[in-house]
Amino acid sequence: MFQRFSFKISVQSCALLVLCFCAYVLTTHAYAQRIATQFDVKILARGLQHPWGMAFLPDGKMLVTERPGRLRIVTSDGQISEPVKNVPVVYSEKQGGLLDVALDPNFATNRLIYLSYAEPVNTSEGTVASTAVARAELAENSLRNLKVIFRQNPKTHGGQHFGSRLAFAPDGNLFITLGDRGNHMEEAQNPGNHIGTIIRIRPDGSVPDDNPFVKDAKAKPEIWSYGHRSVQGAAIHPETGELWIHEHGPRGGDEINIPKPGKNYGWPKASYGVHYSMIPINDEHAEQGFEEPIYYWTPSIAPSGMLFYTGGLFPGWRGNLFIGALAGRHLVRMTTSNEKILSEEQLLQNTLRFRDVEQGPDGAIYLLSDEEDGKVLKMTPAAAQ
Amino acid sequence: MFQRFSFKISVQSCALLVLCFCAYVLTTHAYAQRIATQFDVKILARGLQHPWGMAFLPDGKMLVTERPGRLRIVTSDGQISEPVKNVPVVYSEKQGGLLDVALDPNFATNRLIYLSYAEPVNTSEGTVASTAVARAELAENSLRNLKVIFRQNPKTHGGQHFGSRLAFAPDGNLFITLGDRGNHMEEAQNPGNHIGTIIRIRPDGSVPDDNPFVKDAKAKPEIWSYGHRSVQGAAIHPETGELWIHEHGPRGGDEINIPKPGKNYGWPKASYGVHYSMIPINDEHAEQGFEEPIYYWTPSIAPSGMLFYTGGLFPGWRGNLFIGALAGRHLVRMTTSNEKILSEEQLLQNTLRFRDVEQGPDGAIYLLSDEEDGKVLKMTPAAAQ
Repeated sequence: MFQRFSFKISVQSCALLVLCFCAYVLTTHAYAQRIATQFDVKILARGLQHPWGMAFLPDGKMLVTERPGRLRIVTSDGQISEPVKNVPVVYSEKQGGLLDVALDPNFATNRLIYLSYAEPVNTSEGTVASTAVARAELAENSLRNLKVIFRQNPKTHGGQHFGSRLAFAPDGNLFITLGDRGNHMEEAQNPGNHIGTIIRIRPDGSVPDDNPFVKDAKAKPEIWSYGHRSVQGAAIHPETGELWIHEHGPRGGDEINIPKPGKNYGWPKASYGVHYSMIPINDEHAEQGFEEPIYYWTPSIAPSGMLFYTGGLFPGWRGNLFIGALAGRHLVRMTTSNEKILSEEQLLQNTLRFRDVEQGPDGAIYLLSDEEDGKVLKMTPAAAQ
Repeated sequence: MFQRFSFKISVQSCALLVLCFCAYVLTTHAYAQRIATQFDVKILARGLQHPWGMAFLPDGKMLVTERPGRLRIVTSDGQISEPVKNVPVVYSEKQGGLLDVALDPNFATNRLIYLSYAEPVNTSEGTVASTAVARAELAENSLRNLKVIFRQNPKTHGGQHFGSRLAFAPDGNLFITLGDRGNHMEEAQNPGNHIGTIIRIRPDGSVPDDNPFVKDAKAKPEIWSYGHRSVQGAAIHPETGELWIHEHGPRGGDEINIPKPGKNYGWPKASYGVHYSMIPINDEHAEQGFEEPIYYWTPSIAPSGMLFYTGGLFPGWRGNLFIGALAGRHLVRMTTSNEKILSEEQLLQNTLRFRDVEQGPDGAIYLLSDEEDGKVLKMTPAAAQ
């Protein structure tokens, strides 16, 4: 058996590096032969501090958040703007900070964008925070008429488990994925607050009439589903229009779920992981009345970012599900059939902590790496050899 | 983040080596922390030439086949017997040779064992071969009263895709998994012969009355399912009693299937792989009237051997599915729910070509490595550190 992995790095300019990953596997035994889609990965931009979310503008530029609280515009050739002005103040501790960014479905006419972030409030007992979502108009390099359209209630101490991703459904409603805030995991079982939930609101923050708990006085009307731990990946299935998410397990048990209205996904009563205290968790979801994940990872890969690829550059990957892995330091590619995972492949193994994955208007796949010298990476089909 | 992988080798005796794999992953970010079941792997015996199948005797010894045509008895401390006498002559070319071995469910009283192998016949146009299954009584170190209970029909030229695994169902019937013989893949669509099929017979070779094709004059009555490529893994689900198998795809598309009576699994009309000629294959199974796999691997891992673990030594792995990977050079551990794969983990990554995986009467997991200096490996929970 003969294996060749070439890994070529050449500096093209101050902020431009080219990485070329080419993998061939040749074997003498035909039955053991393998193929792989070949692709190049280019570092488009670097020097972003813990970039977290990205969204493409109609002109091909992209908005990129940095967790400490900056929003940047990155051009298609990798130029990084000054920070966009009038971004809300964020609670930048541990997992908190400026998180996801999304464009309004009618951005071309209304210029509205949405930001999710850990929003602090100072109290006599110190700073508390929770995930909030603001929308604003994007002017040249600043935000105007910013309005907070959602606040996770209650705000609590600590820097863990803010979620959060933003995903617009085909019906125009906005899904916001949240976390259990770490110290309040038991509240993920209580739909009377927003801890450990997925939220569904209209783009102006009002509650859709068909949300599952609108007629339940004991539950928050914004809630779509609950019993989640910390949801850092969300994508709309290109054919069904349904929301798919993944969430971090504790020690093991990262899950993929397809959240259904009003359903309980079991955290912290059910998980395929183990509490950090090493106390076991009942892994029986259905038997306890909770929804089973459609797939999980033990040990954890620490998933972040989620994309259903629909572009033209990688025809063989159309419909595939891509997920970044922080602890795993790889990019997951999966195929699916209805509500099942049919296969899993790890790309870019043992490279970077991948925080987000998006498809560009050019059909390329863009990645963010979670690091002090954070990068925007661009995947394209391998150039002919 | 801090990772430690220790890999310690110490020679204890001529044929005994101890490998200790211990993996810890410690991370500074709690949300990225991971756990792994720790285990030791000991090389129990070595010097076996391409060992292919194994089966445990009631006294804790194991039968191990070597592909060139030898059957050995290996003791629980790794002593390897002289070749067992009166093993049938095999066609030892490429993937052909002496393949799987299984004990009769009533072995304790009847001493019967079953061997699958590539059986040659010399013709005026050279040697042709196909997979056959023989049963015989195991005496001290020889076989007695050997009888061939099944022959794949037709015999053909070439050394590819013989299958084959043997698995007894709870009802006492014997499943035999076969291959398409490489040069005759199109015949896998024709149940009028045994090419690319799974066989279900009684232990004496007769056909059960409830086989799906017993009343179909155009089909072979021994066939359980068809449209398979080369099936080198089979296991009975410990709760449902159903047969699970995996099969090699061409370039990609190795599948896990749960073969149902009379069903067509689509090879070579449907596959998630690519023909060696690089001609694409339609990956739509259901749309063409074939059964969809429940999971697949692209690129190929080249699976071989299959075990549902039910032992006491690894309580956290009870019910898990283990599969060896030849090209992958790792051991797959999967969890399942009904007829779905819920998670996949790779153990012993980048180590050996794992040909078979079985559970010993002591609850340890035993592996065979496919190499000239083939090994029997024993996995046990890690000793306390």
